[in-house]
Amino acid sequence: MHTELCDRFGIQYPIFVFTPSEKVAAAVTRAGGMGVLGCVRFNDPDDLEAVLQWMDANTDGKPYGVDVVMPAKVPTEGTAVDIDKLVPEAHRDFVAKTLADLGVPPLPDDAARSQGTLGWLHSIARSHVEVALRHPIKLIANALGSPPKDVIDEAHAAGVPVAALAGSAKHAQRHADNGVDIVIAQGHEAGGHTGEIGSMVLWPEIVEELAAVSPQTAVLAAGGIGTGRQVAAALALGAQGVWMGSAFLTAEEYDLGVRSGEGPSVIQQALLGATSADTVRRRIYSGKPARLLKSRWTDAWDAEGAPDPLPMPLQNVLVSEAHQRMSASADPTTVAMPVGQIVGRMNEIRPVADIIAELVTGFESATRKLDTIRDS
Amino acid sequence: MHTELCDRFGIQYPIFVFTPSEKVAAAVTRAGGMGVLGCVRFNDPDDLEAVLQWMDANTDGKPYGVDVVMPAKVPTEGTAVDIDKLVPEAHRDFVAKTLADLGVPPLPDDAARSQGTLGWLHSIARSHVEVALRHPIKLIANALGSPPKDVIDEAHAAGVPVAALAGSAKHAQRHADNGVDIVIAQGHEAGGHTGEIGSMVLWPEIVEELAAVSPQTAVLAAGGIGTGRQVAAALALGAQGVWMGSAFLTAEEYDLGVRSGEGPSVIQQALLGATSADTVRRRIYSGKPARLLKSRWTDAWDAEGAPDPLPMPLQNVLVSEAHQRMSASADPTTVAMPVGQIVGRMNEIRPVADIIAELVTGFESATRKLDTIRDS
Repeated sequence: MHTELCDRFGIQYPIFVFTPSEKVAAAVTRAGGMGVLGCVRFNDPDDLEAVLQWMDANTDGKPYGVDVVMPAKVPTEGTAVDIDKLVPEAHRDFVAKTLADLGVPPLPDDAARSQGTLGWLHSIARSHVEVALRHPIKLIANALGSPPKDVIDEAHAAGVPVAALAGSAKHAQRHADNGVDIVIAQGHEAGGHTGEIGSMVLWPEIVEELAAVSPQTAVLAAGGIGTGRQVAAALALGAQGVWMGSAFLTAEEYDLGVRSGEGPSVIQQALLGATSADTVRRRIYSGKPARLLKSRWTDAWDAEGAPDPLPMPLQNVLVSEAHQRMSASADPTTVAMPVGQIVGRMNEIRPVADIIAELVTGFESATRKLDTIRDS
Repeated sequence: MHTELCDRFGIQYPIFVFTPSEKVAAAVTRAGGMGVLGCVRFNDPDDLEAVLQWMDANTDGKPYGVDVVMPAKVPTEGTAVDIDKLVPEAHRDFVAKTLADLGVPPLPDDAARSQGTLGWLHSIARSHVEVALRHPIKLIANALGSPPKDVIDEAHAAGVPVAALAGSAKHAQRHADNGVDIVIAQGHEAGGHTGEIGSMVLWPEIVEELAAVSPQTAVLAAGGIGTGRQVAAALALGAQGVWMGSAFLTAEEYDLGVRSGEGPSVIQQALLGATSADTVRRRIYSGKPARLLKSRWTDAWDAEGAPDPLPMPLQNVLVSEAHQRMSASADPTTVAMPVGQIVGRMNEIRPVADIIAELVTGFESATRKLDTIRDS
């Protein structure tokens, strides 16, 4: 499975995996793909620095990247305290009542009160870029469209290509105009921030748009990919590689989240049990539409009388402690977890290397089947 | 492009096209695919009889099928007058005011008042089956899931396979249990009645479910297919053929709808100008969620104060005359037209034979590209 991106990045397979877990990211890189570490959870740049040092020591000199969350428009900025003041009291009351209704335990007394996930803030996302550029990273991806021009220029000066997510051909074209090197065409099926247009329509639309206006810009297909068959479909539709996330949340190496004993974490239990119909796309996670695992938490926001979500970054400030409390609890029915519709296919815990191996062999057998259909 | 369905149906390509136009259906059949004529517009069985006689005379003895709209659960039944009484006055007022606000002209004085589209009624759909079985049809498809058992039995007794749309693996399994021969896996992207799960996830899910529980049941992929690349993706994902609809609304042979002079019809003008972002999925067409072209009509139902749509079949009774009035007008901004997200790719009027030819050559070039990716 070899496309032009393999040569460009020095990777064996054009499989790019976004993950908040450095264990998973490193394993993807070692298995011949490109692990891309999500930075949004690092409020303190020193924590990211330590994790990237670990990545450097555990990737056999093979390429990896980082993913930051940097809105193209600079949003409300400030310290956690400033931002906090902008959250309406009625919203806080709703969250408190909902957590009580759902029986979500408080954080342990000795847990430091969270300052929220500051990675959504522009200044923190910039600190992630600064830290990352001190490491031999091979890609900076931005989860919310084009990063600001000076960030793109800084990355390019360091020889690091920039990728950005797009939910429409118009977005893709804008990214290319802004100097983005790789557009991640993220279909409606995807987990996390996602648009309305399904992968089957979106991917070739972006491929064709960029081929016409900016042929040097590569396209990765995202949204709904979990097996080698789907990789074959993505490449048939003209993408030069795939961008995956959800399917690696049930990787054996994924060590984030609470677990009681040896088995899967609470989050992984919730994911293993879900079908493709068990996701919702809502603004309740960050303020922008994101696909989440359906849970009693998302149900509460859908119930009559629930408030409208706040804009980014306020919504995340509002729900950040709630997310921590749910993540710390042992109840898989109350979670706030971004995941795509491919969750229906995530039915066992597997090592990263096995997932990658299936993507490759599944791709090969799907293409051989197509040969038979074509040639018979 | 040859799959098992080609042998089973005696067709050259596993391309099934649903269309309300007998001109398009016949042209698809003549071009080597399977034209499937939508019957819901025929209130009078004699009209369907006449059109099927025309089909018989214009398909060179090649196979064609019909599509009926038969809910698995028998809905509210009765004459147009009975049904009419169940429509709330406030809903009628909203429709009347909306049409006035949008400047939709009344029907010409001499136009017979419509009795609504009775094809949604169980009894009428049954009459479509009766009429169709007097012709050499090769497929009966049902747009709303499994038809009643006696209808399936009657079709089978006549040697005619039955197809049914499914939006989830659970639906697909139920159809197979009911004796349906072909499941049409209809992804979120599709026009008309459609579910939440995107094609990229839904198709392989249904393929794998049926392979496990009912391997004799074939799967057609629907939702987002307009080009040969997408056909390749569908077959890579394990479907045995494709089911298309939207992409043939801009066929040269499509002669339904108002047109002023030689050019495209009013509806076709609206479709040619739309992007993939210009659809909405709403219950306003039939009472069940259906993807429609976004228009000033759909905007009006999204505006604050608009009533909730009525259940099937009442909603269609409510809006049927409105649909006729909009269809008869020359304003492409007020239409009620089911169409999928592939509408963004429908940018020119082309003969059916050209569309089919591109599907075949596009499929071939996509699979050759995959061979290069696999073998290099």
